[in-house]
Amino acid sequence: MKQIDGGLCAPQGFKAGGVWCGIRKKNDKRDLALIVSDRPCTAAGMYTTNKVKAASVLVSREHLAAGRCQAIICNSGNANACTGEAGLDAARRMARAAATALGIEPTLVAVGSTGVIGVPLPVERVESAMPELIKSLSADYQGHSAALEAMMTTDTRKKETAVEFELDGKPVRIGAAAKGAGMIHPNMATMLSFITTDAAIAPPLLDSALRLAVRRSFNRVTVDGDTSTNDMVLILANGKAGNPPIEKDDANYLRFCAALEQVCINLARAIARDGEGATRLVTCTVSGARDEETAETLAKAVVSSSLVKAACFGADANWGRILCAMGYSGADFEPETVSVRFRSGAGEVPVCKNGASIPFSEELAKSVLSQEEIEIIIDLKDSGKASATCWGCDLTYDYVKINGDYRS
Amino acid sequence: MKQIDGGLCAPQGFKAGGVWCGIRKKNDKRDLALIVSDRPCTAAGMYTTNKVKAASVLVSREHLAAGRCQAIICNSGNANACTGEAGLDAARRMARAAATALGIEPTLVAVGSTGVIGVPLPVERVESAMPELIKSLSADYQGHSAALEAMMTTDTRKKETAVEFELDGKPVRIGAAAKGAGMIHPNMATMLSFITTDAAIAPPLLDSALRLAVRRSFNRVTVDGDTSTNDMVLILANGKAGNPPIEKDDANYLRFCAALEQVCINLARAIARDGEGATRLVTCTVSGARDEETAETLAKAVVSSSLVKAACFGADANWGRILCAMGYSGADFEPETVSVRFRSGAGEVPVCKNGASIPFSEELAKSVLSQEEIEIIIDLKDSGKASATCWGCDLTYDYVKINGDYRS
Repeated sequence: MKQIDGGLCAPQGFKAGGVWCGIRKKNDKRDLALIVSDRPCTAAGMYTTNKVKAASVLVSREHLAAGRCQAIICNSGNANACTGEAGLDAARRMARAAATALGIEPTLVAVGSTGVIGVPLPVERVESAMPELIKSLSADYQGHSAALEAMMTTDTRKKETAVEFELDGKPVRIGAAAKGAGMIHPNMATMLSFITTDAAIAPPLLDSALRLAVRRSFNRVTVDGDTSTNDMVLILANGKAGNPPIEKDDANYLRFCAALEQVCINLARAIARDGEGATRLVTCTVSGARDEETAETLAKAVVSSSLVKAACFGADANWGRILCAMGYSGADFEPETVSVRFRSGAGEVPVCKNGASIPFSEELAKSVLSQEEIEIIIDLKDSGKASATCWGCDLTYDYVKINGDYRS
Repeated sequence: MKQIDGGLCAPQGFKAGGVWCGIRKKNDKRDLALIVSDRPCTAAGMYTTNKVKAASVLVSREHLAAGRCQAIICNSGNANACTGEAGLDAARRMARAAATALGIEPTLVAVGSTGVIGVPLPVERVESAMPELIKSLSADYQGHSAALEAMMTTDTRKKETAVEFELDGKPVRIGAAAKGAGMIHPNMATMLSFITTDAAIAPPLLDSALRLAVRRSFNRVTVDGDTSTNDMVLILANGKAGNPPIEKDDANYLRFCAALEQVCINLARAIARDGEGATRLVTCTVSGARDEETAETLAKAVVSSSLVKAACFGADANWGRILCAMGYSGADFEPETVSVRFRSGAGEVPVCKNGASIPFSEELAKSVLSQEEIEIIIDLKDSGKASATCWGCDLTYDYVKINGDYRS
């Protein structure tokens, strides 16, 4: 498997584009994206678990129920959440506008929205922008880039990736784009991730592959723990790679799962690194656990703890906070056997052994924790061999500034 | 029931005192406290749910198992947590030192510790300070104040309260002191609350009264959600008020419960108000719920949300964040019937009705949210009539500064 360029348009048979349609007041950035396959795709989606769901989530879930999709239309600048019946109608009109322009069934169109909650979506601007949006479509990186820009809100970096691998000698590609600085934005409703692939794969297997990959990537990243009303991950598979269709849980399926997981992890890390106000990407790996769920619960508690996050900002080797966070995670483990060490480009420093302090150089620890990417490595020395990795970021003044500022 | 002065020493038959024994390097603040009843007390305790428990928690739980206690010795500057067998021995030596000096059984002494995690406790300093500590005991506000000062770590305000009420014509008093700016401190292990009363009450009723009061007070306050390794709430009842002993679930028991709940709520509010870096006390009340647990889960999710907390700091009427937090709380409710309003000394402003936006004056909202004490009032308009109130604080630059700074 190798990293390649092209993002959403890396796989064969996909076009993407984006325009400014006026949902955002300022035209300094595109706000309407379209991603299209030149043939109907096998599709799978995962959606926010928030009880308050945006209209786009409800409509996309309905349209993808049959496991089929050909296009995704997505706006930024307005979440179309807490907007009632009018919001649902607006989301349906977005799908219809794209379907009409593309000459396909509205149910083959998924809808994404991100932006302010509780404000009516000016859907007529989407409708009148369709001709221009269609014109913006292209099958190259430009197309991908325009679509990604149109998805972004307060993101400071583009979150994109693509990989290529082989199935029975056929090159297969997966491309992806994501927006969101983790779970939380001023009142932006947050994470959207769209994935394209030219693999040929049966709907149930595509669905299970997506669930597994998301569990080990997006579900293991946190900037703050707030789960938004609009979160959505969609994958479209058009089969143009010509690989023998993946129809059972075999070696090819496992290869596809590994590639998809890598794609999702690349985006998850990018989201954590771009966490609001973040200066560091914090990776926590828990090993020696009785099972993966225990390891995941512990690692997530550590990267989620505000005091661990603030210590990372201060490059403070404050390991007591790590044991404290593990202790209230709800996971079952033996504090007396835990060891903790910090690692980064600047080196490695063990700080805790058998649940208690060990002497270490504060100077070395500070330089290790002062890097842009730092790792918290925890060994439970428990019966099992299971491990899990979660990603987060530090808690900074800018986080407070971004989220304390007035809506604008 | 009326508020009175005196704190821990307000009830009859209690003395308190505090000294600097050298656990804290600087002698600018006392670091060793003693609270004593002149006779053995009926006692009850509640302890941290963190899997990582400080030695003081383990020893106090053991000593109070029989529901009897006469004295509490407590140090600040060292949490005596993650310190292994030596830590347990140190906690036992603290209890023994106090018991010997007071001429009582070590099992009648509870131990509290708060401060840095993972550093050995210099217990010999506690032992050699005993004569001076005994000398510092007094039955007035001075004594209470010295003990409270010795419990404090990064607290910026004294958290103390006392009430008086009548049981069959006898005046009964409850006094209390607490330390902790919520669940989280740099690496301070956090909340301690000691309560004294001269009420005569049977052990099982004292225990159930404490559990109910704590559930509705300390368990409904959050600064950040981190539950420390040292949290402890203890109540000592010496019976000197001479009231007919409370031995069943009757009107007198309910009066006692109401008074104890008020005492705990006073301290819980003080803890939230003194949250690290906090500029505002945020009170969230959820009503119209099917049951109290649902109301509590929703209110706690709102005051715990970093984006709600940051919005409060910015005085931003960002109600979408409130619905979002309610939505991921896990509680069952209908978003479509929710109404939200903000209230403070500056007035009241409804911002959301039936789960959707309603027009409001941003100017008024800003002035309402700019006060030191603000309320978020949520009506679920659900079948039930249950409600619950939780307390928190805003998220500020100073929170990050305090927690990002190096240990010192």
